[in-house]
Amino acid sequence: MTDLQLSPDHVADRPRLLLERMTLEEKLAQLVGFWEKGDGETVAPLQGEFTVEQGLDTATLHGLGHLTRVYGTRPVDAVERARTLWEQQRKLVRETRLGIPALVHEECLTGLSAWRAATFPTPLAWGASFDPELVTEMGAVIGGSMRQLGIHQGLAPVLDVIRDPRWGRVDECIAEDPYVVGTLGTSYVRGLQSAGVHATLKHFVGYSASQSGRNFAPVHAGPREVEDVLLVPFEMALLDGQAASVMSSYNEIDGVPVAADPRFITGVLRDRWGFEGPVVADYFGVAFLQILHGIASDLGEAAGLALAAGVDIELPTGDAFLSPLADAIRAGKVDEALVDRAVLRALTQKQQLGLLDATFDDEPPTEVDLDGPEHRRIAARLAEESVVLLSNDGTLPLAAGPSTIAVIGPNADREAALFGCYSFVNHVLAHHPGVDSGIDVPTVRQALAAELSGAELVFAPGCAVDDDDRSGFDAAVAAATDAEVAVLVVGDHAGLFGRGTVGEGCDRDDLELPGVQRELVEAVLATGTPVVLVLLTGRPYAVDWALDRCAAVVQAFFPGEEGGTAIAGVLSGRVNPSGRLPVSMPRSAGAQPFSYLHPQLGGDGDVTNLRSTPALPFGHGLSYTTFTHTDLTAAPEVPSDGEVVARVTVTNTGERAGADVVQLYGRDVVGSVTRPVAQLLAYRRVHLEPGQSAVVELTVPTTRLAFADRDLARVVEPGRVELWVGPSCSTRETEAAVTVVGDVHHVTTADARWSRAEVLPA
Amino acid sequence: MTDLQLSPDHVADRPRLLLERMTLEEKLAQLVGFWEKGDGETVAPLQGEFTVEQGLDTATLHGLGHLTRVYGTRPVDAVERARTLWEQQRKLVRETRLGIPALVHEECLTGLSAWRAATFPTPLAWGASFDPELVTEMGAVIGGSMRQLGIHQGLAPVLDVIRDPRWGRVDECIAEDPYVVGTLGTSYVRGLQSAGVHATLKHFVGYSASQSGRNFAPVHAGPREVEDVLLVPFEMALLDGQAASVMSSYNEIDGVPVAADPRFITGVLRDRWGFEGPVVADYFGVAFLQILHGIASDLGEAAGLALAAGVDIELPTGDAFLSPLADAIRAGKVDEALVDRAVLRALTQKQQLGLLDATFDDEPPTEVDLDGPEHRRIAARLAEESVVLLSNDGTLPLAAGPSTIAVIGPNADREAALFGCYSFVNHVLAHHPGVDSGIDVPTVRQALAAELSGAELVFAPGCAVDDDDRSGFDAAVAAATDAEVAVLVVGDHAGLFGRGTVGEGCDRDDLELPGVQRELVEAVLATGTPVVLVLLTGRPYAVDWALDRCAAVVQAFFPGEEGGTAIAGVLSGRVNPSGRLPVSMPRSAGAQPFSYLHPQLGGDGDVTNLRSTPALPFGHGLSYTTFTHTDLTAAPEVPSDGEVVARVTVTNTGERAGADVVQLYGRDVVGSVTRPVAQLLAYRRVHLEPGQSAVVELTVPTTRLAFADRDLARVVEPGRVELWVGPSCSTRETEAAVTVVGDVHHVTTADARWSRAEVLPA
Repeated sequence: MTDLQLSPDHVADRPRLLLERMTLEEKLAQLVGFWEKGDGETVAPLQGEFTVEQGLDTATLHGLGHLTRVYGTRPVDAVERARTLWEQQRKLVRETRLGIPALVHEECLTGLSAWRAATFPTPLAWGASFDPELVTEMGAVIGGSMRQLGIHQGLAPVLDVIRDPRWGRVDECIAEDPYVVGTLGTSYVRGLQSAGVHATLKHFVGYSASQSGRNFAPVHAGPREVEDVLLVPFEMALLDGQAASVMSSYNEIDGVPVAADPRFITGVLRDRWGFEGPVVADYFGVAFLQILHGIASDLGEAAGLALAAGVDIELPTGDAFLSPLADAIRAGKVDEALVDRAVLRALTQKQQLGLLDATFDDEPPTEVDLDGPEHRRIAARLAEESVVLLSNDGTLPLAAGPSTIAVIGPNADREAALFGCYSFVNHVLAHHPGVDSGIDVPTVRQALAAELSGAELVFAPGCAVDDDDRSGFDAAVAAATDAEVAVLVVGDHAGLFGRGTVGEGCDRDDLELPGVQRELVEAVLATGTPVVLVLLTGRPYAVDWALDRCAAVVQAFFPGEEGGTAIAGVLSGRVNPSGRLPVSMPRSAGAQPFSYLHPQLGGDGDVTNLRSTPALPFGHGLSYTTFTHTDLTAAPEVPSDGEVVARVTVTNTGERAGADVVQLYGRDVVGSVTRPVAQLLAYRRVHLEPGQSAVVELTVPTTRLAFADRDLARVVEPGRVELWVGPSCSTRETEAAVTVVGDVHHVTTADARWSRAEVLPA
Repeated sequence: MTDLQLSPDHVADRPRLLLERMTLEEKLAQLVGFWEKGDGETVAPLQGEFTVEQGLDTATLHGLGHLTRVYGTRPVDAVERARTLWEQQRKLVRETRLGIPALVHEECLTGLSAWRAATFPTPLAWGASFDPELVTEMGAVIGGSMRQLGIHQGLAPVLDVIRDPRWGRVDECIAEDPYVVGTLGTSYVRGLQSAGVHATLKHFVGYSASQSGRNFAPVHAGPREVEDVLLVPFEMALLDGQAASVMSSYNEIDGVPVAADPRFITGVLRDRWGFEGPVVADYFGVAFLQILHGIASDLGEAAGLALAAGVDIELPTGDAFLSPLADAIRAGKVDEALVDRAVLRALTQKQQLGLLDATFDDEPPTEVDLDGPEHRRIAARLAEESVVLLSNDGTLPLAAGPSTIAVIGPNADREAALFGCYSFVNHVLAHHPGVDSGIDVPTVRQALAAELSGAELVFAPGCAVDDDDRSGFDAAVAAATDAEVAVLVVGDHAGLFGRGTVGEGCDRDDLELPGVQRELVEAVLATGTPVVLVLLTGRPYAVDWALDRCAAVVQAFFPGEEGGTAIAGVLSGRVNPSGRLPVSMPRSAGAQPFSYLHPQLGGDGDVTNLRSTPALPFGHGLSYTTFTHTDLTAAPEVPSDGEVVARVTVTNTGERAGADVVQLYGRDVVGSVTRPVAQLLAYRRVHLEPGQSAVVELTVPTTRLAFADRDLARVVEPGRVELWVGPSCSTRETEAAVTVVGDVHHVTTADARWSRAEVLPA
């Protein structure tokens, strides 16, 4: 049904013919969504201000662009809901004048947002896996489930580059490095779209750089930062991933709300990158141009600004694009041609999806398994690859070890602790207390009990994630005192708009563990029993105080339905940890924002007393074996439009098999503008048996060194580039250097954006 | 001697004729400074890397541009040093080929930086006074002292708009509002230059917006923020204050170091604003283009970049502009015409200062009083006007009150506690332990004893400013327990490069009171004795916890040599406090950066759980009397190139005389870009007797509402503007509205930048 390589003739025909027949009302109807009333829980900002009560019949009098979140708003049986959906679509086909069905969109950040659907690790965990192929596999099974249920478009992936861990939506993001975001985000897009479901790149652009990590706060960034950091993943996912749709973001950049900024939504997206698909507004984002940004006097003006900028579809409902926009057009304030442009894009997308020919005479699925063995396999493998061992004095793995284990902490035996903010599981658990979460989710405690059947496990939660009740401390301390080792599972609870410690609208102005959890850890440490600290979080916290004092520290970013089992596997030793930090572990909230991609003066130095470097660097992660990186080589010169071919030997110098993530970093020593002290140029996950070596050949197009020059042109400049491989961005275990020669190379969209990596026998 | 209104002919002649006769070495010599070796203390970043050992004779073989800090590096007798200076100048006149004396520059941020010179309140205190006339008086007496000693140029004022209180140099800044910075900064320039001494506006531009408040860290700002906030005070001080010189700043903005950016140093300064004076580099800032920014391969290239951008003079020494630049010119890498341009500016400045005709045959001063009665009077009045009463339950004033007072805290009896980082007093106290500070400085304790001669004062420091020694707590608690009231004086110690809690290179990643001072306050509070907390600081700290629990809280930003007496006066009631916060009192370091000038989404709201609003707002400050603001009126319409004339009645409704600062705020409700929720449009300090009313007429040119539009053109847009007057930016005590009518007004440099305020009888 999907045809992303549509012939130009075909594109030109049907949508335009339809457009010509449309009344203004019919056009506008194609540009908006309809959202059935949910259960009253807020799942979008200021939702209470907007969600309309009218029924679908009234809403579809003139047709309908999108059906909003038909599966993801309430825990409904998917088969039952699909039956209704097919009926709704048939009605649109048969009873509206033009007979165009609705495009059905749904959230799918960590899996299809629907009851009983598989819930995968959160994007930060994809980042920690550094495994693009696996993310593609995940995208494909998510897309398969969606396709089966008549969903056409998924509102993922999030390509916001992490700029400040205080922001609540960090758990939806992949990494603090734009290339990691770009490669893994593109992999997700490829997977999802291989199943015929359109991906939506969000949030375009800059949302993650909001001031002091406060949701929706202004972004203070100049055009070079936008070019070199924030736009990069979008370019990759559009040009390399052929993503079908883009969502405009809520934020302003330097005073101009992006959803009303033609420089980005038309200038960059369409004129520079050639994107022809529809841009959808983030939920209520068009109305926010008036009520939150104050750049429009009324909703009609807001609609006109958004359309003129290049936004095509208003989601989730038609608050500005229906009567306010119609009034503005009739008053001559907005040019109807802008509507026509958007409608053509909307109809072209429907045509690509086969919707212009769909009759819905086929039967909806009568049986679905949204969480089948393939889902579980991928969920498990991704969870396993994403667990990061931060520190270890040898206490881990526990396998041969203790007969009594105290399992402590608010996240040790809590299903919700494994899931991020956009997971449907958490939505059900939080809002539908009588209802089963829908999927089988072993907690860390349960998984550990299964994994270590020989050991006695004593459980004491100690405290909740985020209150000040210390009444459980005594039991926790008692359990630890009597145990050979204490496994302490602390961290976040994901929620929405202040109902979580992380998640949308759950920002932090400190980066200590929430609530009294640090006190709990301190109390357990005071028993003298070795503590294995497991951080089950949606953001990196400031835990440098724990790194030396705990026997081991394990970081798991919300690892999904198989996450408890993966963590237990790491603790037992069944799984050799291989995750690497996709984000710096911060020293404090007051040291933010920080990025490992800083120029020299963004780090430590003689001109400030502060230590601004993080507690643990980007790329860090231990294993139960050890790896060395040696003999980095590269040709001494590379033409400015060429490729650096670097080879490095990686050796498993330990006792057991394991996977390493080979990380090649570079530093452009002198530039016409300041350049980062370290930049990840290429990476490759490599599995090695004990004693085994491999040569990894990393082929890096010079475009990976490109940046926006003084004129904001994207260039590769001649000059010396230092290269190194090491266990993180901050350690040069083996070094080389290459000189870029020739003229300044002006990068075009046809240039390569990906490095390649090949594993050769040593 | 000074002739700032030089005739064009005169300008054209002498410097050009001289230039034509110069060798390259002679030209370069005019572009650099010479710094006599100090006592080894670091007073500039990375100074140890640079300061050369050569003597003045060698350094002046080809002439010399600047003599660097001849008085301010060591505690020397000014008369004695002046004698040497005159000799050095005569030597330059008589023994160099062209006979051009050096320009002598010195620091003068809070008074002439010299031994025994008056030390005035720090710029944050000027901001708190909201008294431009008094700042002009201060500038004039500072300039008088400098002129007397043969100093031609002062490296002040600092016009960096406060963007983040974590930054150590906040104590050198005036306010978080660019208009307050602009008006008070311009006032200082007028005062200084009225004495014939050239002011230097610094740091041009953006330095205060460094990431997370770390000194020298990259500035993440877009061009609109630069235009609307960071450039504003410079424009005012140049166009309204006719400042003679500008210093380029260390920082980069969005990847481009400003000292190498022609867009600012030539495009804005010269092309747009018509500035013709010399731009001096911040100390070692040219070399930093290579060694810290990495945008030049060697010092010659760094010199070329700086010259090309529009930097003319290298300070403090000629590290890049001498042989590295000469080599680059001879190698054809730098155009000598750039040197000629700089030399012309340097010589023109010397001509304006009369230096091209100076023979130094006159005698140096044989007697100077750098801290005479006029200095003390102004220092006292400015200190008194700058003390901000943050909260008060009626405990203050103490006058009629307690017979026993515990005076506690590390800043209660410490001379250095009254001074900021650039004060010479602090330099002497820190580095020359045997040497007298040079001026008479009553501490708070001493002043309080003099002020309250009837009361018994018991002193206990309790702790130091910044260590963890709690051994003095017991004595402090005992003193408080036995007293009727405890006056607790806590806060900062200003220093350089990590040797202080505030000052250059003394940044913070938390905003708690340094060291164990909060614990000391808590311990004293626990005695139950009412606590009057006095904050003697160089930045605003997060002290919301203290506001309700202390009987009163007084904020004094380093108030200078008369500051102890001023604080004692406020405590006793002799002085009725009238300072207002020139900066928001933050809630935490993790909530930074924050500015009261945020758009709607930069504040609190439904889309984030965080309370981002500060503990106390910009403009807040109590009095021992009360004021009401009523009957704000303004004509309903104003042309877009016109003036808003607002009138408001202010009434002293209390029992005693006092001064209010009438603050008129505005909000542009809808703009083509986002606009701040509050913006100070005009202010006026008014003295009122008990029961007295006055009408204050505030005439606000619409240009005060101007901003950079989508095309970065500075415009006044038509539309509705809400106006209010109240006790701070966040309270609308009396409101009005005005509609700007007509076309969009494009603001020119000829437009008015200042509001006017007149006090009419009620």
